[in-house]
Amino acid sequence: MAFTDDLKFDAAGLIPAVVQDADNGQVLMVAWMNREAVEKTFETGLAHYYSRSRKKQWLKGESSGHTQRVLEARTDCDSDVLLIKVEQQSGACHMGYRSCFFRLRTAEGGTVEDGQKMFDPGEVYGSKS
Amino acid sequence: MAFTDDLKFDAAGLIPAVVQDADNGQVLMVAWMNREAVEKTFETGLAHYYSRSRKKQWLKGESSGHTQRVLEARTDCDSDVLLIKVEQQSGACHMGYRSCFFRLRTAEGGTVEDGQKMFDPGEVYGSKS
Repeated sequence: MAFTDDLKFDAAGLIPAVVQDADNGQVLMVAWMNREAVEKTFETGLAHYYSRSRKKQWLKGESSGHTQRVLEARTDCDSDVLLIKVEQQSGACHMGYRSCFFRLRTAEGGTVEDGQKMFDPGEVYGSKS
Repeated sequence: MAFTDDLKFDAAGLIPAVVQDADNGQVLMVAWMNREAVEKTFETGLAHYYSRSRKKQWLKGESSGHTQRVLEARTDCDSDVLLIKVEQQSGACHMGYRSCFFRLRTAEGGTVEDGQKMFDPGEVYGSKS
């Protein structure tokens, strides 16, 4: 069966995508795709997502240039989550970090920032950030 | 701020958790937690989830013995996804695989199984599987 046809989208027509750095396995982000974004991703080889706040499909990196070239795609036993391995330009996080998962839980239950800063969001996104 | 207090649960009171093998970075599964499951996870050090179909919290491995000891927890820039690194006993997938993400997309857009079989679900779950 075709990979895309087998995917199960939720009631809103979306599927979550876990995005992993193809180089070192670091989880970079989790975002949502609709069917159109999935198709566009495989057509172009560049990750496309669906923004739930802006209600539209977008090319990751369309304003920042920080695109994600997709090297591998998998789905899970329930076919309701995507896992993609990507070649990430600069950082995945709009806050300037390599990975969005820069908030680490401490042994005491607090939170510390533990991320690799790749760019200055003010410079990349201008007044939007 | 306390890590758990900062988390953003969705309208159904849930947050997705990406589960990564602490040893080699393999993404093992994605599951949902409610606040109680998050608290129980950090209290016990063993991953607990919320089953949307059974509408109850469960300890991963409660019937199979394939528990997940949590070694690290992170959340993302929006605080609406969890990433945990675990020591996985046997396999994470109820279908017997190490990882739930054993369905790989081929270059032609098809699907092949590409996973490491760890156990026989029939033996582990008996008549339930």
